[in-house]
Amino acid sequence: MSEWTVEQRDRRGLLMMAAAAGVTLATPRLLRAAVDKAGSKFGGDLSAVHAAIDKQRPEAIKRLQSWIALPSIAAENRNMKEGCQMMIDLLKEAGFQTATMLPTDGQPGVFATLDAGARRTVGMYFMYDVKQFDPSEWSSPPLDAAIVDRPPFGKVMIGRGAINQKGPEATWLAALHALKAAGRKPPVNIVLVAEGEEEIGSPHFGQVVHRPEVLAALSKCHEVFMPFASQSPQGDVRVALGAKGLIEVELVASTQRWGRGAKDDIHSSYKAELDSAVWRMVKALSTLVSEDGNDPAIDGWFEHVKPLTERQKQIIAAEVAATQEADARKLLGVQHWVRDLSYRDALERLASQPTVNIEGMFAGYTGPGGKTVLPSKATAKLDMRLVPDQTAAEAEAKLKAHLAKRGYGDIEVKVTGGYDPTQTDESSPLIKASTSVYRAEGMPVSLSPRLAGSWPGYLFTGPPVALPAGHFGTGHGSRQHAPDEYYVIESGNPAVHGMAEATLSYVKHLYALAGA
Amino acid sequence: MSEWTVEQRDRRGLLMMAAAAGVTLATPRLLRAAVDKAGSKFGGDLSAVHAAIDKQRPEAIKRLQSWIALPSIAAENRNMKEGCQMMIDLLKEAGFQTATMLPTDGQPGVFATLDAGARRTVGMYFMYDVKQFDPSEWSSPPLDAAIVDRPPFGKVMIGRGAINQKGPEATWLAALHALKAAGRKPPVNIVLVAEGEEEIGSPHFGQVVHRPEVLAALSKCHEVFMPFASQSPQGDVRVALGAKGLIEVELVASTQRWGRGAKDDIHSSYKAELDSAVWRMVKALSTLVSEDGNDPAIDGWFEHVKPLTERQKQIIAAEVAATQEADARKLLGVQHWVRDLSYRDALERLASQPTVNIEGMFAGYTGPGGKTVLPSKATAKLDMRLVPDQTAAEAEAKLKAHLAKRGYGDIEVKVTGGYDPTQTDESSPLIKASTSVYRAEGMPVSLSPRLAGSWPGYLFTGPPVALPAGHFGTGHGSRQHAPDEYYVIESGNPAVHGMAEATLSYVKHLYALAGA
Repeated sequence: MSEWTVEQRDRRGLLMMAAAAGVTLATPRLLRAAVDKAGSKFGGDLSAVHAAIDKQRPEAIKRLQSWIALPSIAAENRNMKEGCQMMIDLLKEAGFQTATMLPTDGQPGVFATLDAGARRTVGMYFMYDVKQFDPSEWSSPPLDAAIVDRPPFGKVMIGRGAINQKGPEATWLAALHALKAAGRKPPVNIVLVAEGEEEIGSPHFGQVVHRPEVLAALSKCHEVFMPFASQSPQGDVRVALGAKGLIEVELVASTQRWGRGAKDDIHSSYKAELDSAVWRMVKALSTLVSEDGNDPAIDGWFEHVKPLTERQKQIIAAEVAATQEADARKLLGVQHWVRDLSYRDALERLASQPTVNIEGMFAGYTGPGGKTVLPSKATAKLDMRLVPDQTAAEAEAKLKAHLAKRGYGDIEVKVTGGYDPTQTDESSPLIKASTSVYRAEGMPVSLSPRLAGSWPGYLFTGPPVALPAGHFGTGHGSRQHAPDEYYVIESGNPAVHGMAEATLSYVKHLYALAGA
Repeated sequence: MSEWTVEQRDRRGLLMMAAAAGVTLATPRLLRAAVDKAGSKFGGDLSAVHAAIDKQRPEAIKRLQSWIALPSIAAENRNMKEGCQMMIDLLKEAGFQTATMLPTDGQPGVFATLDAGARRTVGMYFMYDVKQFDPSEWSSPPLDAAIVDRPPFGKVMIGRGAINQKGPEATWLAALHALKAAGRKPPVNIVLVAEGEEEIGSPHFGQVVHRPEVLAALSKCHEVFMPFASQSPQGDVRVALGAKGLIEVELVASTQRWGRGAKDDIHSSYKAELDSAVWRMVKALSTLVSEDGNDPAIDGWFEHVKPLTERQKQIIAAEVAATQEADARKLLGVQHWVRDLSYRDALERLASQPTVNIEGMFAGYTGPGGKTVLPSKATAKLDMRLVPDQTAAEAEAKLKAHLAKRGYGDIEVKVTGGYDPTQTDESSPLIKASTSVYRAEGMPVSLSPRLAGSWPGYLFTGPPVALPAGHFGTGHGSRQHAPDEYYVIESGNPAVHGMAEATLSYVKHLYALAGA
């Protein structure tokens, strides 16, 4: 996912991996038995489904490999039509009666429905695009989707999209295939929307979600779910109850827009008589945060910021109790939290505080040594995390007003992406049903009040859809956006699901949602 | 020259070109007659010298072409030994009895002497290196040194180093060749120092100048002169009475040195709990200048800054009277001087004010779109112009103290280059002799109190050498450091010298210095 907290997830994973080093591996057989036993609560006797999963295992793996072999990359306009068509084919093969390409001003989305004649309808969110990659950085070719041994994880598939997001999506589709092979109808109807621009910030996904027929279909749903392999390497299933929002903007200060200084770069000796666009940028940026750079200082920024609830603070306290601060610091490469806060205060800030971050900036000469130039332009890229009830639109307006009020109205503010924050109630059917499945399978659930990262879930949690939305599941994988992205096919740790076990878990999840 | 105000020079040139568009071209013959007549004052009857220059013209051009064909580029460590040897050969061929390679910690310099048994000894400064170039950007290959028609300038040689600095230097050497061919001894003894690192800021030239034998030789001199083709396209000879100093520094703020934030780049969602090296840089930079970015605000920066003298203000007033502000603004692409100053006040600032300029800065992600990263490092490249009596060493110490006092002592300050300012008295023999030659030749002299740019002349004007130093002459060329750098060989404007006329002018200049 474009922004879905790679490190945020990995952080807990790494922490727990550090804690669990040297765990004794149980045999897969023991795990299977546990899975079957737990299964009885969701869907009754799943032995036929289980057998189907076992039998279909080679074709499920092959299906995922074929999907990875066709990378759709919106940033490169690569295989977009083909990827959209493959998404449609994959859905139809899995039993969706309708699966339609929906054009947008950008890359097309998909709208699909599966009517099982069930009482309850579940909304689903898929993406068919993947992040860019450089094959030279991979130990196994990123489109080969080869299965290799990777202790302690077990046998993993290495490929672009393995965990983000084709692996978990293909595993969820395998659950539908298994149900069908076992002679069962899905226990829920399904409305699915997919996009091909998640990795560039979902700029046109609203055009898919807000189509009348899609809104009508989603209005029958009680939640929107995206499958993900969110188990840590130690086995706890991480369930986030929301995510921060995000607005990314590029600020450009230029002498041409300003009408001061020289309109082009000029010899730096002229600085004595000419204004500088770079100093203007530095001075303007400096007004956006507190003196230590840690609190937004944009006028009115905190107007709609809600404090953490007592329950959210409890969840954080539980996380603090479950992890070692020293390990956390070591894994992040950190000696001090901002203002030397305690670990708990730092985690509360992480969940609750909006941020203004400079993700990049550049001006003038950036090569080796020096070059005596007075630059005519300076650029800063900001990302600003938002918390409920801030919105991306509000943030943009406030930033612009703040700059204009201080005489920086000529500084260009280009919004390059934006998500509102999301929040899903812990007592919603989605969260209750999901966590009950994981707990019945014997897997601890790690709640977090809010991801510090962001995802397009706001299109579902915000109006007009306004549903609980979540993004989790069993299984494990990592290295999203990085070389050697992987997804566990056969787990080396009995506490962590491989692809087959995760398939069965999704079957149970469907039954759990059916009964929610 | 690395820093010798390309635009600064071009500015006046362009202004005057604009004023003189459509000038009627006189024939070279008329010019020659004028030159001869003027020549009688410096060196008596120069007809034999004149004839020698005419005769040697093809070989003088060929000598310059061969020199340009061998580019010595210190930044690329290209042809440095070969270039140093060629410099030595060129000096010996011109009559220097000694010309020795002097090793330094960087590229070698040259120390050469010509003992003519004369009463007076003149110090000379040469550089044998040139700026980097990209042949694909040139209309004529930069090492071919082809002579092409370039109206209104006339026949010009196009090549890297044509004006900066091989053309003027080869022209000055041609003067020695002509004297010899005419059976004359040079009217002065000559002590010459040359370097191969001017284009990278002369980092080791002090090691050449400060060798005991070089200091001893320079102690016999009354000035240090560097030939240059400083005529504007309209014919006035530009003579600067000094130059600003310069210190270039790279500031690096990093979490590793700071001991706060994450030691490597990390996902930007962590900004809520981690300090940012980029914000630290922005806040630190912001303390270095006034709110409008136009005055240095570094503690004690103005302690040794001398105001302009009344005479310097007069010279600037003369420049204001000679140029049109509207033309100046148009040519620089400027609508307003800082703080909407008058043209005269702007020019006074240009000559008198120290500056703190950001020539470049960069941090984090600088590609297209966004990337949600919290960078662990930020870099800013500053160039700071210095005026008498500031020194580069003082500036470095004050910058560091200023940062340390505000708690930014961990921000690395890497000095990448530094020159002290220079000042040469208008009544010094060098300036009086030089301007008398130009005026006798009928060419107006445009004085300026101080170049806003910088050059390594401080090694001559500062202790222990402490001599007047200057860098000017007749002839014209431009596009230093740029593609299609050129030097006028045959002038299309009778008011501007071509190479032969400039050679004769250097002969007279030697006689003028002999009698100074």
